[in-house]
This record gives sequence, structure tokens and C-alpha cells, in this order.
Amino acid sequence: MSEVARSGCVVFGSGNVACALAPALEEAGLHVRQVYSRSIANSRSLADVLAGAQAVDSLDSVCRDAELYVVALSDNAIEPVATAMTGTGGLWCHTSGGVGAEVLEPAATGYGVLYPLQTFSKKREVEMAQVPLFVEGCTPCVEEKIKELAEKISGHVYHADSAMRLRLHAAAVFACNFVNFMWTNADDILKAGGCGLSVLEPLIRETLSKALSMSPRDAQTGPARRGDTVVMQRHRQVMTAEQSRIYEFLTHSIIREYRADR
Amino acid sequence: MSEVARSGCVVFGSGNVACALAPALEEAGLHVRQVYSRSIANSRSLADVLAGAQAVDSLDSVCRDAELYVVALSDNAIEPVATAMTGTGGLWCHTSGGVGAEVLEPAATGYGVLYPLQTFSKKREVEMAQVPLFVEGCTPCVEEKIKELAEKISGHVYHADSAMRLRLHAAAVFACNFVNFMWTNADDILKAGGCGLSVLEPLIRETLSKALSMSPRDAQTGPARRGDTVVMQRHRQVMTAEQSRIYEFLTHSIIREYRADR
Repeated sequence: MSEVARSGCVVFGSGNVACALAPALEEAGLHVRQVYSRSIANSRSLADVLAGAQAVDSLDSVCRDAELYVVALSDNAIEPVATAMTGTGGLWCHTSGGVGAEVLEPAATGYGVLYPLQTFSKKREVEMAQVPLFVEGCTPCVEEKIKELAEKISGHVYHADSAMRLRLHAAAVFACNFVNFMWTNADDILKAGGCGLSVLEPLIRETLSKALSMSPRDAQTGPARRGDTVVMQRHRQVMTAEQSRIYEFLTHSIIREYRADR
Repeated sequence: MSEVARSGCVVFGSGNVACALAPALEEAGLHVRQVYSRSIANSRSLADVLAGAQAVDSLDSVCRDAELYVVALSDNAIEPVATAMTGTGGLWCHTSGGVGAEVLEPAATGYGVLYPLQTFSKKREVEMAQVPLFVEGCTPCVEEKIKELAEKISGHVYHADSAMRLRLHAAAVFACNFVNFMWTNADDILKAGGCGLSVLEPLIRETLSKALSMSPRDAQTGPARRGDTVVMQRHRQVMTAEQSRIYEFLTHSIIREYRADR
């Protein structure tokens, strides 16, 4: 099939990333022709919010003449889809932080990655224009095409190879998943006293502003940083055994980090 | 000395809290008469930004007829000052999250706490009107006086007894000190790849918004939450031994937390 005849876009997936990206592709001027999900209910619920997209639940039904295929599936579902769609052609990208671009090679000669560095939930709308997009192409020419596409979606487009993408993904675990878990513990400590995390909001926002404007290493404060063992002992009084375990572990890690300063 | 003759305020300390609070007291209409610090250079540098405040470095020089004494010293310096100033009278408050109000008892019959829940640095100006202030008084009448004072400084004044203040302080360690340490690790992982924490800013801000609007427990995502061991193994490739240790510890803690959900 000649490249000229190709048109529109297929989105694989109906999860949080697909639900954020598909409308953004439409707003960027692309026609989303099909949404694929193993569950037809899920593909329909995404297709229904798009203009004239067909919901499909079988890879046999996926059209083979689209210009663009966006694979927004969970990491381990990407390769099987690319293999099932061998020789389809067009431009293929997946959206994963932790998977190499080359898993898409069976599907087309032009493939790459469009990785949105954001946490998406169907319940919350995210302004895609502000989301950093990291792109990679199997050739400089393919990367340029993905970059042009990405720039229609967001004002923050960067190149990242697989190694860098893995760093971004691992760093995001520390900066967001682990951080969120710290907030869960703080929330629990406060709830046991009758309030909740929101009372810490101004403090949390200032801590973030400091970390971004100085550097988190220089911005570190607190009893662990100061080596204030009296305060640390008192804190244990209001913690569960598991909270104390985390507190002790991270305190020692901070002490090791700053040992040379003391 | 009669209560009528008392006037103005003395600030003990020249650190981050004192430097944020003293100008706020002035803006609230109080005359800061003296700033005490063991280092005259430090007390001078704070007194110099106040209208007509005297810098002192000896407790013998501190006036005994002030209306208000604000003790913004490090935790272990509060009690010695209160003892040295035995029988001074007036209204006394300290600003510590981890120390009981009663350490001020030697100094006066009217004492309490005015605890600002914020991280202060001399380099960064903080809008005091937005800082949550937690107050406690040795009697309801004294607490009312401290509350009135606090409300002149901030629109967010709450009561907190020593037990609640300890919870707030311990929760703040999780929500801010430990979180900042996570950001340091993320920053290091990214710097080894040529970028830095700022690339994660939209993701961090959205993570915080989700934690505050849902609840951090419900907002938890990531490979530990999903039990995605393949991704977790790959992440180790871009981490130092110490980062891996933290990663493993917190991953197991998150897995334990959500075990019942799996």
C-alpha cells in the first residue's frame, strides 16, 4: 500500500494514557479512526468521546492503512500487538517509559516512542500542552516526524533514548510514587489526631518550591539532617510500628547522605 | 511591675523562624523592642530590619517589662532561657513543634505556644498570612490572647495541644523532609543522565493535586502498587547501590500496605 493512501490514526488502549492522549491527538488535527481494546466496552467508552472513531476489540479488525498507530498499552502488552500487526507499516509509537522502541519493529519500518511524563487518571483532566513529551525515533527522519506530532500536542517536547527514558521513569518513582506514599503516612499520623494532610499543604508547597529553586540536596532540613535525636525519639510516640520502621530507615539514609557535613 | 506598664515585644532568636516572625509581629502592630541572640552579629542583622529594635546578646540586658516574649530558639535552648528569665512576667510563647508549653513556666504565669507550620529560610520570603499557626495557652484566657495575636499574623489559626503538635511535627517530617530526600534521589538519577528534577515538575504538581483532592492512599500508582516486578528490575539498572536500597525498602513497604487489595 502506498504511503499516500494512508490516513488517520489508530489508538491501542483505553486506559489512563490512551484516554488522555486520544482527545489530544484529535485536537492536534488527527482523525482517530479506531480505538482498540481487548474489552469492547472499554474501547467504546473512549471511542464515544472522539469524533467518528470506531471501537474494536480484535486485532484482525484494526485497519492496516492508518498513517499513525499509537500503542498506549501496559508494558507487557506492547510486543504481542506489534507482532500480531507484523508488516502493517505507517508510523508506530508506544507511550511507555520502561520499554525500548525496537519492540515495535515487526509492525513497521518507522517506529519510535512518545512518552508523556505525567500521571493520568480518568477522573482528572490534565492540560496536555503542559505535559513533557519525550520522543525517540528509529531513524533521525522518523524521530523528526514524531517530534512534529508531539509539538502539536505539547509545548514541552524533548529527545530521550531508552536509557534516558528509564532514568525518567525510575526518577518519577522516587519523586512521585514514593513521595505519595510519604504523604499517605503523614495523612495517617494526622488523621489519628483528628485532622489530615491538607493542613500541611502550605508547608508541602513551600518545600517543593525550595527544592526546585535551590536544589533538594541544599534544601534538606529536619531532625535527621540536624541529627536531632531528642526530637526523633519524641516522634516515635505518635507513630505505628510500620511508620517507625520507615522513619528509622529514611533517617539513617539521610544521616549517611549528609555525614560528611557534620 | 503592673501589667499596665508593660509594652512591646522581645524576640529570642535570629534564625529562620525568628527572621520570618519578627517582621510579621511588627506588621501586626507590635513594637519589637529587642532581639536577643547569643551572637550580637546575628541579633543585629535581624534588629536592623525592624523599626527601632535593639540587638542584645546577654540575657541580663533583656528588658523585664515587655508585653510579649517570643522564644524562637532551637528546641534545647528554650528551657535555659525561660529559667534564666524566671519571674519576668508578661505573655510568653515559644514556636517549637516538639516542645511542651510548660518549659516556659518559670518565666511567667501566662505562657503558651505559637507554632508556625512552615519551612523558613532566610533566602526565601514566605507569605505569613498563609502559614498555619497552631496555638496553645496554659489557660483558656491565655490561649485566647495568643490566638488574637496569631490572627493578626495569619488567616489560618488553629488550636493544637502538645500531643497534636507532635503529630503535626512528625507528619511534616514524612510529608516534607522525607519527600525532599526522595526528590534528591530523583534529581541524582536524572543528573546522571544530563537533566534534573525540574523536568518532573508537572508530574510532581499533579501528584500533589491528586493526593490532596482524592487522598494519597487512593492516589497511589506506580510499579510497587501494581506489583510490576519486570519494570522494578529494569529501574535498578540506573540506580546506585544506596538508591536501590531505598527503592527496595519502600517498594516492600508499599506492597505490604496494599497487600489486601491484590
